[in-house]
Amino acid sequence: MNRDTIEHLLRQVAGGQVSAEEALRQLETLPFEDLGFARIDHHRTLRRGYPEAIFCQGKTTEQVLAIATRLAASGSLVLATRLSPQAAQALQQRFPQAEYDELARAAVIRPAGAPALEQGLVAVVSAGTADLPVAREAVITARTMGAKVEEIFDVGVAGIHRLLAYSERLRQARVVVVVAGMEGALASVVGGLVHAPVIAVPTSVGYGASFNGLAALLTMLNSCASGVVVVNIDNGFGAGYAAALINNLAGAD
Amino acid sequence: MNRDTIEHLLRQVAGGQVSAEEALRQLETLPFEDLGFARIDHHRTLRRGYPEAIFCQGKTTEQVLAIATRLAASGSLVLATRLSPQAAQALQQRFPQAEYDELARAAVIRPAGAPALEQGLVAVVSAGTADLPVAREAVITARTMGAKVEEIFDVGVAGIHRLLAYSERLRQARVVVVVAGMEGALASVVGGLVHAPVIAVPTSVGYGASFNGLAALLTMLNSCASGVVVVNIDNGFGAGYAAALINNLAGAD
Amino acid sequence: MNRDTIEHLLRQVAGGQVSAEEALRQLETLPFEDLGFARIDHHRTLRRGYPEAIFCQGKTTEQVLAIATRLAASGSLVLATRLSPQAAQALQQRFPQAEYDELARAAVIRPAGAPALEQGLVAVVSAGTADLPVAREAVITARTMGAKVEEIFDVGVAGIHRLLAYSERLRQARVVVVVAGMEGALASVVGGLVHAPVIAVPTSVGYGASFNGLAALLTMLNSCASGVVVVNIDNGFGAGYAAALINNLAGAD
Amino acid sequence: MNRDTIEHLLRQVAGGQVSAEEALRQLETLPFEDLGFARIDHHRTLRRGYPEAIFCQGKTTEQVLAIATRLAASGSLVLATRLSPQAAQALQQRFPQAEYDELARAAVIRPAGAPALEQGLVAVVSAGTADLPVAREAVITARTMGAKVEEIFDVGVAGIHRLLAYSERLRQARVVVVVAGMEGALASVVGGLVHAPVIAVPTSVGYGASFNGLAALLTMLNSCASGVVVVNIDNGFGAGYAAALINNLAGAD
Amino acid sequence: MNRDTIEHLLRQVAGGQVSAEEALRQLETLPFEDLGFARIDHHRTLRRGYPEAIFCQGKTTEQVLAIATRLAASGSLVLATRLSPQAAQALQQRFPQAEYDELARAAVIRPAGAPALEQGLVAVVSAGTADLPVAREAVITARTMGAKVEEIFDVGVAGIHRLLAYSERLRQARVVVVVAGMEGALASVVGGLVHAPVIAVPTSVGYGASFNGLAALLTMLNSCASGVVVVNIDNGFGAGYAAALINNLAGAD
Amino acid sequence: MNRDTIEHLLRQVAGGQVSAEEALRQLETLPFEDLGFARIDHHRTLRRGYPEAIFCQGKTTEQVLAIATRLAASGSLVLATRLSPQAAQALQQRFPQAEYDELARAAVIRPAGAPALEQGLVAVVSAGTADLPVAREAVITARTMGAKVEEIFDVGVAGIHRLLAYSERLRQARVVVVVAGMEGALASVVGGLVHAPVIAVPTSVGYGASFNGLAALLTMLNSCASGVVVVNIDNGFGAGYAAALINNLAGAD
Amino acid sequence: MNRDTIEHLLRQVAGGQVSAEEALRQLETLPFEDLGFARIDHHRTLRRGYPEAIFCQGKTTEQVLAIATRLAASGSLVLATRLSPQAAQALQQRFPQAEYDELARAAVIRPAGAPALEQGLVAVVSAGTADLPVAREAVITARTMGAKVEEIFDVGVAGIHRLLAYSERLRQARVVVVVAGMEGALASVVGGLVHAPVIAVPTSVGYGASFNGLAALLTMLNSCASGVVVVNIDNGFGAGYAAALINNLAGAD
Amino acid sequence: MNRDTIEHLLRQVAGGQVSAEEALRQLETLPFEDLGFARIDHHRTLRRGYPEAIFCQGKTTEQVLAIATRLAASGSLVLATRLSPQAAQALQQRFPQAEYDELARAAVIRPAGAPALEQGLVAVVSAGTADLPVAREAVITARTMGAKVEEIFDVGVAGIHRLLAYSERLRQARVVVVVAGMEGALASVVGGLVHAPVIAVPTSVGYGASFNGLAALLTMLNSCASGVVVVNIDNGFGAGYAAALINNLAGAD
Repeated sequence: MNRDTIEHLLRQVAGGQVSAEEALRQLETLPFEDLGFARIDHHRTLRRGYPEAIFCQGKTTEQVLAIATRLAASGSLVLATRLSPQAAQALQQRFPQAEYDELARAAVIRPAGAPALEQGLVAVVSAGTADLPVAREAVITARTMGAKVEEIFDVGVAGIHRLLAYSERLRQARVVVVVAGMEGALASVVGGLVHAPVIAVPTSVGYGASFNGLAALLTMLNSCASGVVVVNIDNGFGAGYAAALINNLAGAD
Repeated sequence: MNRDTIEHLLRQVAGGQVSAEEALRQLETLPFEDLGFARIDHHRTLRRGYPEAIFCQGKTTEQVLAIATRLAASGSLVLATRLSPQAAQALQQRFPQAEYDELARAAVIRPAGAPALEQGLVAVVSAGTADLPVAREAVITARTMGAKVEEIFDVGVAGIHRLLAYSERLRQARVVVVVAGMEGALASVVGGLVHAPVIAVPTSVGYGASFNGLAALLTMLNSCASGVVVVNIDNGFGAGYAAALINNLAGAD
Repeated sequence: MNRDTIEHLLRQVAGGQVSAEEALRQLETLPFEDLGFARIDHHRTLRRGYPEAIFCQGKTTEQVLAIATRLAASGSLVLATRLSPQAAQALQQRFPQAEYDELARAAVIRPAGAPALEQGLVAVVSAGTADLPVAREAVITARTMGAKVEEIFDVGVAGIHRLLAYSERLRQARVVVVVAGMEGALASVVGGLVHAPVIAVPTSVGYGASFNGLAALLTMLNSCASGVVVVNIDNGFGAGYAAALINNLAGAD
Repeated sequence: MNRDTIEHLLRQVAGGQVSAEEALRQLETLPFEDLGFARIDHHRTLRRGYPEAIFCQGKTTEQVLAIATRLAASGSLVLATRLSPQAAQALQQRFPQAEYDELARAAVIRPAGAPALEQGLVAVVSAGTADLPVAREAVITARTMGAKVEEIFDVGVAGIHRLLAYSERLRQARVVVVVAGMEGALASVVGGLVHAPVIAVPTSVGYGASFNGLAALLTMLNSCASGVVVVNIDNGFGAGYAAALINNLAGAD
Repeated sequence: MNRDTIEHLLRQVAGGQVSAEEALRQLETLPFEDLGFARIDHHRTLRRGYPEAIFCQGKTTEQVLAIATRLAASGSLVLATRLSPQAAQALQQRFPQAEYDELARAAVIRPAGAPALEQGLVAVVSAGTADLPVAREAVITARTMGAKVEEIFDVGVAGIHRLLAYSERLRQARVVVVVAGMEGALASVVGGLVHAPVIAVPTSVGYGASFNGLAALLTMLNSCASGVVVVNIDNGFGAGYAAALINNLAGAD
Repeated sequence: MNRDTIEHLLRQVAGGQVSAEEALRQLETLPFEDLGFARIDHHRTLRRGYPEAIFCQGKTTEQVLAIATRLAASGSLVLATRLSPQAAQALQQRFPQAEYDELARAAVIRPAGAPALEQGLVAVVSAGTADLPVAREAVITARTMGAKVEEIFDVGVAGIHRLLAYSERLRQARVVVVVAGMEGALASVVGGLVHAPVIAVPTSVGYGASFNGLAALLTMLNSCASGVVVVNIDNGFGAGYAAALINNLAGAD
Repeated sequence: MNRDTIEHLLRQVAGGQVSAEEALRQLETLPFEDLGFARIDHHRTLRRGYPEAIFCQGKTTEQVLAIATRLAASGSLVLATRLSPQAAQALQQRFPQAEYDELARAAVIRPAGAPALEQGLVAVVSAGTADLPVAREAVITARTMGAKVEEIFDVGVAGIHRLLAYSERLRQARVVVVVAGMEGALASVVGGLVHAPVIAVPTSVGYGASFNGLAALLTMLNSCASGVVVVNIDNGFGAGYAAALINNLAGAD
Repeated sequence: MNRDTIEHLLRQVAGGQVSAEEALRQLETLPFEDLGFARIDHHRTLRRGYPEAIFCQGKTTEQVLAIATRLAASGSLVLATRLSPQAAQALQQRFPQAEYDELARAAVIRPAGAPALEQGLVAVVSAGTADLPVAREAVITARTMGAKVEEIFDVGVAGIHRLLAYSERLRQARVVVVVAGMEGALASVVGGLVHAPVIAVPTSVGYGASFNGLAALLTMLNSCASGVVVVNIDNGFGAGYAAALINNLAGAD
């Protein structure tokens, strides 16, 4: 039941076609969701330009294609993450305009004529080669959401000077995403170098007592640097999404 | 050695009182941190208005007083968190102008004449009565950093309608801090209601299999809502700090 | 805004004192929770006789008294759990009619004239002496909610014949609550003896590798007996509550 | 030795063919389980219509077929869960009447002429597509045990309005099964919406810090909503079984 | 219903006073435990001389006294473990003949005239001073059960020669109990020196990553020496009990 | 350096061929192992008839064959556990007399003419079909070491009467091995039924919160029944080995 | 910017070509890394002879070849660890001079004419056959860094005399690496035998409650022997690297 | 029986006062440890100057005094760690010459005339104020063992420039001890700055997801910097001990 329905009901009460008691009964039994969906529709408008994401891991190629087709048909900007090679190939056949990033295992399908914004600055920093898929997923997500993104890869804490060389560039970013596995110490060091909020992404890169990313996750949660927040292990999408939300708060440059 | 010292040295070189070789030697043997502090000093300027924080847990009252006195003397805005009742009393005796919040276990000492900004909007949402100390710590931290903060307390997921009643207000915030113990589900629900970034703070409130906040932490890290980031268990300060950084990105209203 | 308020508004529309447009505006700007409370009020009616529970752990005696007073004043049946001795004493002074169970650390405050139902049958089984506080909390909760409860205490799996002696009585119960610490094996054995649903409550009783109830919790979750469900460690209240809900489904005998 | 055997023995004693001493000796040396089976037989009667379940994971196709054949031959209603595709195919060849659900990985073999009851109402709610196999296992288990089941799928907490739209339907259920992976917050929200007991099933869906379902499990155990009980990770069968037990307590509608 | 009762019933059937049908009904409704208790009584006889143990941790002094008094009155050999100093004092006042071991926190109350056996040989080996309470608990338990016990204390693996000096004595034992905290490596080394079964008791002695005995527990469970079995952390009683059972299998020397 | 060597040296000192100083130097630099090996040789004799075990998991077929050949050549009784099908086939080709048990994944190679003892009684009890490989490994190990072994399989706690039917037989065993996965409660129940020592073997059978046997392991370590000791998860060999050591203590029947 | 650049700048100030203000500005905006790299270059010199390591796990054969080629071209001593068989084969084809160790899964590529040092003594001790790959990785790493290495393999604590036989040789080592899985007790025993620092490497060898090396890791961290330090599970490279650093401190013999 | 005793015996054999047979018998029946002590005595000489350490935590003041008195009487250098204030006071009364460090909770009792060496260089680096007790324990241990120690305290990774300012000094150390709680990232950064071995000490400083030092421990074990080894949480003694062993390898400067 939306506003129009309620207005119609009230007019019937005013006009005497419906009694107050009957109107009360109808209002009481209104499906809640109708008011709710109205709100959702409204804020869908506010979110225009943000992608609909499909987390493809654990979905069949058929499911991925079906969801992507439905979303694309509705004019949405579509971001598919964790694509298997098979699903990626099928997606590119179905959507020749899809931009596929093999390293990130992600693809973007833009509605025709949708301009790609490049506002603000999100820096995505990563430590090792093995962290790149997660870092790239963050990059692509933030870019798809309209943020200008700069990649600063291969800067680990064990060679601190390589990182320090990027200090100035890091300080220009509105928000910094730090992607690191192993011991995950990079987040704290970057957090001490910049004033911007830092989104730390632990990765499952490592072995032994890294426990599939748990070590890096705990490191980042316990960071002694202020302004560091954390997302789930390997969650490049989540980090890129939050980074873009934050970056876009300050609007275009 | 700060900027002034280096400038003075260069002027002596320019004036011929010091040779280039001697200046090089002096620069080479400079304690590295002086260059470092120069940078810090520089960006300290950018950060003007942000507090110096003292994490008082595990420090003696004497240590807290000593650090607070040194910081206050340097003109800093001081934020003391996790104050014991004893340390709080001593701090108030030493600094009669200190604003002490018993619930948050935090105190703020403002430099004379420092205006309190109230820009943007940070919403701090919490679930239960026992989460209030952490929530208040976030509130005070963000306020001290210049953000306007609105408290929306006592809205748990088990009574979802209370939370939904605040939907509009939540959507007006630039960033939302969600503080919850027990199962920590509130972060996901709020994350689905707003478009702003959500900073989730698990608290150690609970018993049994809450494992001192671990359950809420895992819940929040695995949130299915996009835009949710997480800080350490009970880290109200960290959440408030990051929230203010994000809020202030978009400047005054 | 409750049902009366809405009814009053609708009557004003019907009577022409308020226009349909004005009524629509008022309804739109209603704090959402009021609609919510209307629903809650409605289902509160369905729930008549069920207690409002106060989890007192971590609350001050003053907070406990304040909440209990407000609830009692509204005519609610009040159940206070995890009462400290101090809070219990204060509660009894304020509410002389309160029924306090020292072992369960719980108190019940009944509205004047509220009949105590005793329908169906909930069996509460426990293993060791140290599990009794949790078991009694379950007993009192279920009784307060109108269930007839039978206590079968001190029947551990290491002396299986004591338990088997109660087989018939156990099979008469509509639902069985099993409270056990240490290795928690009792739930599986009981689950194999009865056809009723079994609610297992691990307790933190034990030492060493019991890890404060984790061992019993895992045992119960992995029970090979069908029909066993689990609540949080030491959560006697939760078990009693769920047991009463299930027991009451089948109505009075 | 079943009831008939004992009765026969007693008649021999009564008829003088067997002395009391000899009968005592025979009774004493009776395999204990025979008395046990007598009881089981007795309550088997009470349980008529409930399925014999085969947990097929870790069993060979041959083992599954052998057990199913023996149970079906004894006239039991058979429910095979966690079927591999190979075992499913073999089962269908052996039992053409078997009802196989590929999504649930489950098959039901009904005795000829066994009526399928549809009493009461169990609602099975799930969050994501990947949770469907577990949810369907719960649905099929409860249905096989005679419950009417309604599926409410794809209602996650991140889009709370979709869930709220089903509030009324949820409130009509005698018991609700909530299946969710990731952070598992759905159980708490549903628990706050209904008065019926809620059986929460964590699933191993997720990645990183979901730790194969541990995060959802902890969330559900710590639920702040009263009336929520939990089963093992991915245990759709257990949830459906317990739900049907509870649903059937109140008999046919 | 014990053997006599059943025999009486059968005689009544034989004599025609009770019909076969009535006897069958009586047998069916017999409380199961009666048969059970008969068995228990029987094997109680076999167990004569073994102590009834009271685990006093978490029990009040009153409860300890009550249980001890009841057991002693029934002529049992009583072993009270984990005695608080208060409970120990009260126990000694009540039972002047009680043998109290302060280090082990255990007391033994023997029935008058009960001989103390000293058969076979149990060696109890421990590493550090802090492990002594647990080691002594094992010693006293095994002695109370009739085993001759030899203490070999303060022999850690970091000074392997001290341990090797006892090789011959260790090899004379029928069973060896090894008590160790920290890394718990002693169990493996002893297991390699002897042919007897080794019962390993991890203790909660240690700090940091010993995690209250978890490290020692895991070490012992993973022992590469054959013949090593493990009991719960700090469970000196359990180790001594099992050791005596094993020791006594071979009877007196 | 064995006793003869030392005696020879001392005689040389007595005879003046070697000075005291030189003898002292030689004694100081004696390889320690020589004394050690002498002892080992000695107790090897005592251990005659016990098998040399090869843990084949993680070894190549070639390595397994090489070790088995060397041991068999030295006249040892060889027990190979955790054999892959390939290694088993190769072993049988090399040693046609090998007794291979496919379920247990174990093979025994007896020296020609070695009699197979069958003394005492070890009962091996297991709960589910999936626990059989571990249970059989225990059976074969204990048998190879000369114990008479009785298998009591498929007796889970959820159907307690099946287990109780074996009470008498269980009480005749000198030692009982209990093999159980899932929640592992069987160990406690058996521990309460018998007076013999019980060796509990948790298995990795289960899913979800069984955490690959951790749940069963914790259950067994926390057993409330006295006389229960535990070995590593899936360690059927270790349990069978310890059981045989204990069983053999009392010698032949 | 290196020393020459700064000296040049200062000379320009001294010569009046550059003002003090301009020089200050240039100094302030210097990329930090230039100073940093100068330092790195400097200490690269000090480190001459130490290998550049490539951790190949998770890298494609192409990536491994590319990195190895670049490092070899720069004249570095290259150490590739965790090589897959494929990558090893490709590496040997590209670098015929590569020394490949199949057991260690490692290869060394030496610059032409680079002498292989053999100074000091590092002892690498391991317990079981399955620990050998990790032990050999440590051996090869330490050797490549110029240390003389002695392998003492297959000396487990369950047969302590085999280890003791090597006591003298162990005491001659400057540093001892101990590699052990299962319960990892070897580190403590060796730590008690020698005065040299001991580097303990837990391996993931084991099953059940070894939890992929966690048990051995905890054992080693809790070692009661002084002088024992620990590296990550399976980190043979790290242990060999640290051992060589320590060994080389004392220079050539 | 020490070296002198054996020498005396051999001289008696040489002199004919004791026969070879009698000497053999005496040697054979020697308590094994005496031979062992001979070896220990021998290497005790090598270790001259190294302290005997007393870990006082969990020991009574009486026990601490007794052990210290015995060790001091034997001429040992005594190091008492983890002293309670009471034990410290008692120790100073008994040994007026004891050097007590309140922050480190440690005391040193030197034999009269024992010179304090100051060779090589051990750097002890720590991050926060709360880490100081552990850092100081490392300092005092290493100093007591003859190393020159330099303290570099209060240099956390969140302010990386403070740490970099000490780069040169750090590079002069033979071995560096890094003490850090919270996320423990300091070890990796220091490991990247120096060529010396780094001993990392995680501390239990932190809260929430630091899990009493577990987070820092995992960080350090997973360090991406080569040459980093780790000791137990809060084990300042162990780090100082290992550092001195390493430092002393290279002898005096």
